[in-house]
Amino acid sequence: MGKHPGAHSDILFHRNASNAACSTPCSFPANIRAMRLLLALLFLFVTSFAPAADKPNFIIILADDLGYGDLGCYGHPSIHTPNLDLMARQGVRFTDFYSAAEVCTPSRAALLTGRYPIRSGMAHNQFRVLRRESTGYLPDDEITIASLLKKQGYATGAVGKWHLGNWMNNPAGHPMKHGFDFYFGLPHSNDMNAIPGKPKGEDNSLDPDPKWWQPPLFEGEKLLEQPTDQTQLTRRYAEQSVKFILDHKSEPFFLYFASTFPHTPLFTSEKFKGWSARGRYGDVVEELDWAVGEILTTLSVEGLDKNTFVFFTSDNGPWLIRGLAGGSAGLLRDGKGSTWEGGMRVPGIAWWPGKIPAGKVCYQTATTMDLLPTIAKFAGTEAPKDRKMDGVDLAPLLTKNWTAQHEVFCYYRGTELFAARMGDWKAHFITQPAYGAPKPEPHDPPLLFNLKADPGESFECGADHPYIIARIKTAVEKHKATVKPVKNQLIETAAK
Amino acid sequence: MGKHPGAHSDILFHRNASNAACSTPCSFPANIRAMRLLLALLFLFVTSFAPAADKPNFIIILADDLGYGDLGCYGHPSIHTPNLDLMARQGVRFTDFYSAAEVCTPSRAALLTGRYPIRSGMAHNQFRVLRRESTGYLPDDEITIASLLKKQGYATGAVGKWHLGNWMNNPAGHPMKHGFDFYFGLPHSNDMNAIPGKPKGEDNSLDPDPKWWQPPLFEGEKLLEQPTDQTQLTRRYAEQSVKFILDHKSEPFFLYFASTFPHTPLFTSEKFKGWSARGRYGDVVEELDWAVGEILTTLSVEGLDKNTFVFFTSDNGPWLIRGLAGGSAGLLRDGKGSTWEGGMRVPGIAWWPGKIPAGKVCYQTATTMDLLPTIAKFAGTEAPKDRKMDGVDLAPLLTKNWTAQHEVFCYYRGTELFAARMGDWKAHFITQPAYGAPKPEPHDPPLLFNLKADPGESFECGADHPYIIARIKTAVEKHKATVKPVKNQLIETAAK
Repeated sequence: MGKHPGAHSDILFHRNASNAACSTPCSFPANIRAMRLLLALLFLFVTSFAPAADKPNFIIILADDLGYGDLGCYGHPSIHTPNLDLMARQGVRFTDFYSAAEVCTPSRAALLTGRYPIRSGMAHNQFRVLRRESTGYLPDDEITIASLLKKQGYATGAVGKWHLGNWMNNPAGHPMKHGFDFYFGLPHSNDMNAIPGKPKGEDNSLDPDPKWWQPPLFEGEKLLEQPTDQTQLTRRYAEQSVKFILDHKSEPFFLYFASTFPHTPLFTSEKFKGWSARGRYGDVVEELDWAVGEILTTLSVEGLDKNTFVFFTSDNGPWLIRGLAGGSAGLLRDGKGSTWEGGMRVPGIAWWPGKIPAGKVCYQTATTMDLLPTIAKFAGTEAPKDRKMDGVDLAPLLTKNWTAQHEVFCYYRGTELFAARMGDWKAHFITQPAYGAPKPEPHDPPLLFNLKADPGESFECGADHPYIIARIKTAVEKHKATVKPVKNQLIETAAK
Repeated sequence: MGKHPGAHSDILFHRNASNAACSTPCSFPANIRAMRLLLALLFLFVTSFAPAADKPNFIIILADDLGYGDLGCYGHPSIHTPNLDLMARQGVRFTDFYSAAEVCTPSRAALLTGRYPIRSGMAHNQFRVLRRESTGYLPDDEITIASLLKKQGYATGAVGKWHLGNWMNNPAGHPMKHGFDFYFGLPHSNDMNAIPGKPKGEDNSLDPDPKWWQPPLFEGEKLLEQPTDQTQLTRRYAEQSVKFILDHKSEPFFLYFASTFPHTPLFTSEKFKGWSARGRYGDVVEELDWAVGEILTTLSVEGLDKNTFVFFTSDNGPWLIRGLAGGSAGLLRDGKGSTWEGGMRVPGIAWWPGKIPAGKVCYQTATTMDLLPTIAKFAGTEAPKDRKMDGVDLAPLLTKNWTAQHEVFCYYRGTELFAARMGDWKAHFITQPAYGAPKPEPHDPPLLFNLKADPGESFECGADHPYIIARIKTAVEKHKATVKPVKNQLIETAAK
């Protein structure tokens, strides 16, 4: 067997070795020490007036439908993810990291705005995500990480799947209307341009026929190709990401790389086809892992690694009805579409060599909504104060080993609050498996689980802890009072 | 919250740092180089006549009922195992490592002899393990790792649970009759001295009452205490293990540390009680992790680390009917007592700094039966040639990145061959869940799964691969032809 095509170039290791060399103690005569002190003060004086040149860069890499159990560093036995595993060894790996929704559109709205998707009208009980024919989009007055950073002088780019407005129906939905200077990718999921006659099981196929899908690929507002060749998407996304980094390496930048995969149908480039022992799903994850390696290697080669915060996560849990074409939530219950842990707890890996610890495992609750306040803090600005923010700043947690407090984390399914987590405890007010149950089942009293003692949510224990249920209920009521009715964006469609 | 009581002392890191320092290139004048060469040759000459002093040491650490998903480095989100995770980062972590049986006694017989337990009569369909009243034991003519190494001049010690003969009924079952010079521990499982009247659910209790069990603790053949205080066992095992290492540090040694836990009932010392977020099960695993840290730290402090091969594993999968007092098989199917993957695939971590790679993940099939041939090879001797060995030598796999070939790995339940794995494929000839189904279900043709593509054994695919089934059947027949009838050791009991 040849070298793994995604094998990391080891450049990151070299940097670590030189770190170790720097820790050698040195001694200098007093006059040299004094001169060094003077120079340091002069440097501080100059840099305090410098513009944004030393502001850190930010990269968010978002997988699509990748499950909690699908990476090597999260225990998968046959998907090989050397680059993401290395990222975890050099950074912080979260055990209790959440997407803020159980499906795609609301999850992405939350990530980019730092707010529950119900606040932006980007969640709906029946139309779970924006459809191809939708005209709604992330409202203009929402502040995204990109628009926030753009005001701070950042170059901002989005590569990959958008799914927060289909500009082919309504130009206002385009990412470049939401703070991004640059865009390359698909407006929505890769299964949304299925052509009539597509065989029913084709979405689950481990060797899908590309002819059944005709996704449009855009650069900026320009349609590059339709159909585009999905087998080339991950490779092109990686190239565009690297190009964006190189183009903007002399100014602060924000890159949002939202992979089209492992959402079905599953396609990879020729190099990765048949590579993974886990089958096509593994091929796709391993090509994504390769793309992550390309990005981290570029940062290291360009000397940007010590000034770039990278975060890797997924938009929701694995799409279990896809069978072998879907992922695994590991020991968690259920998957995509559900408010059981498997639907919303996802991998979360933070990386910033020298700034955040290497090889740390963080057991605290954190969410994609925390990225906006965290990035705002690292960029030297603040999260918007004129609106309710649901995310919390993770900077103290990442850099100082302090806790980041979510009083309560709410699990929505569409616009309904199904469950809430406070500390180690989760109360389910309503449950419904992702598939197979036609109606939601309300619970009063709610079902209670201790997620640390029982991560698989198998042993209900509400009767023993009425006071905890009461505390969660109070916090949920407090949260609900902050939610105002807004126009729902997932209903309207273009005339057929 | 204070410092984790199991937090590693970092001594291992210091050793690595000094390694790095040694790699600095040096240059010497030619005459000094010549003298160095002469000295090196002299050293080689002297050591080639030296006795066993430079033979490596061996330590096997065996957990009891620890599941595939129960360690941090295997993806558990709330059990903290910093020492085992570090051991994996400094060594080789196996994704496809197996115990050779689905329950305790046969698994241990296989580990120590390198042979399927059916060959030693240590497996039975009804009496799954040796009972407290059993008089049978591992037959005298079986060669254990200990007896093999003892002949090579090794000091041999066993600490912990034995369960290969209860010498209180029959003195021939004692570990010191099977190659061990030293013994400290319990003759069998910690639930086998339940006293009359024990409440039915007490085994599953997360706060078990010690008064319901009266285990006997032995040092050598001497009964030290009965009942012994189970809360002190892991601490005392760790102390005895460290003492054994220190007592024998100037000669080659073999230590077999077989933890009593996380088999139920679950007890820990005061220090770990209530420590883990995963509850009592987590407390017990985290105390075992602490014990592993004590052993590895001792090796490092004493400068023995580079000459000691340490292997950590479990005797079978998690005891799922114990509820929260049992563990997790992660994404694998079923648990202890079953021939589905969760019953027999277990954590496997190899450690030998400088000799085997650091931070490597090994995806190949390996088993506890491989430890005897591997250790024999590392010790400079050979596995017994006068009998069928089922283990293969892992040394090439560990040190040279070669493959180790198991033509077929057989999953026995008692004396029945239920399933067999060849490469990535597993055929189930008979299935029976660990609990809940009164009778085994035969399959002809067998059920076929690709364990790499489908580690959860959810998607049967025999119809597509008749030739693979045929190949597995041929290999199984070949294996069966090597199995000779022997006296069963699990039947006979002492007169009541």
